[in-house]
Amino acid sequence: MGAAPQGARASAAGLTVWLTGLPSAGKSTIADGVAARLRAEGRRVEVLDGDEVRTNLTRDLGFSRSDREENVRRIGFVASLLARHGVITLVPVIAPYASSRHQVRSGHTDLGLDFVETYVATPVSVCSSRDVKGLYALQRDGGLSGLTGVDDPYEAPAEPDLVVQAHIQTPEESIDTVHAFVLTRIPR
Amino acid sequence: MGAAPQGARASAAGLTVWLTGLPSAGKSTIADGVAARLRAEGRRVEVLDGDEVRTNLTRDLGFSRSDREENVRRIGFVASLLARHGVITLVPVIAPYASSRHQVRSGHTDLGLDFVETYVATPVSVCSSRDVKGLYALQRDGGLSGLTGVDDPYEAPAEPDLVVQAHIQTPEESIDTVHAFVLTRIPR
Repeated sequence: MGAAPQGARASAAGLTVWLTGLPSAGKSTIADGVAARLRAEGRRVEVLDGDEVRTNLTRDLGFSRSDREENVRRIGFVASLLARHGVITLVPVIAPYASSRHQVRSGHTDLGLDFVETYVATPVSVCSSRDVKGLYALQRDGGLSGLTGVDDPYEAPAEPDLVVQAHIQTPEESIDTVHAFVLTRIPR
Repeated sequence: MGAAPQGARASAAGLTVWLTGLPSAGKSTIADGVAARLRAEGRRVEVLDGDEVRTNLTRDLGFSRSDREENVRRIGFVASLLARHGVITLVPVIAPYASSRHQVRSGHTDLGLDFVETYVATPVSVCSSRDVKGLYALQRDGGLSGLTGVDDPYEAPAEPDLVVQAHIQTPEESIDTVHAFVLTRIPR
């Protein structure tokens, strides 16, 4: 990262927090909650997810392995650009392949940027009963295939920086956990 | 600027400067020169161009109209993300279609972010004699087709924010011109 730009506060170290986990694990809820707290503390925060990203960055991508890898590559690159400029970027994106996550980590650490792999470890049984977007039901009914963790691979992190047991915590407790961890990784 | 991101200080106004023009017009030279000056002044600056962008953001894109539009859409979106966080982003990218440039401008102004369309107006006769990357010669020899301004469209800006007559100035003079204009658009 090197020289802090003028106007940057000493506390303006960028950081990418990738929340990986199954569909309905709680990734977006946690990311949004942590982002809200960090913003309230006056920090620069971005959440890379949602319609804006899909419309402008990844609209061409489907759910093949190579498309999922490309999705992670593009979003990871954008996160690293933001981290270079002091933004804390939360990325609640499945990222099912360990090699993709490793590549994004390298893209950060090679530039001296910090990267936190956070595993939102809600098991598939809990995710499928929550089924926020109705994907698990649709898969059971034959309406889709290639659902991560069901009939498409999910490579759980072997050595994540942080594990969130979102199925045995309230959302607030999970948000607390991640927020507290992020604060240990940035200058106070 | 309009709505600053929550937590941003007043001095950290972001801005996107898109340098549009033909191949070999001088876009990258000017962008790099302006970026170096702004960095020396201690400002947050990014140049979106080059191998890093092509590898990580746009590797799938070719030179069809729709691919060129998608290229501009993705890069424009990333520039707007950076602008939200106070970064001055220079984009030396051909962007041949007026509608694409308009879309990127809207993506900024809709969020209260400033956007400067800079037309590097070097005429095709000068560009083809410079031919930094050998593209014009290759096209003449039948080695490629779809070269912007020769056998592929270039819609010159009708109402650019700034025109740079890079063919009748030295590179330093062109850099001066853009740098001075950028300073008028950001808080001192």
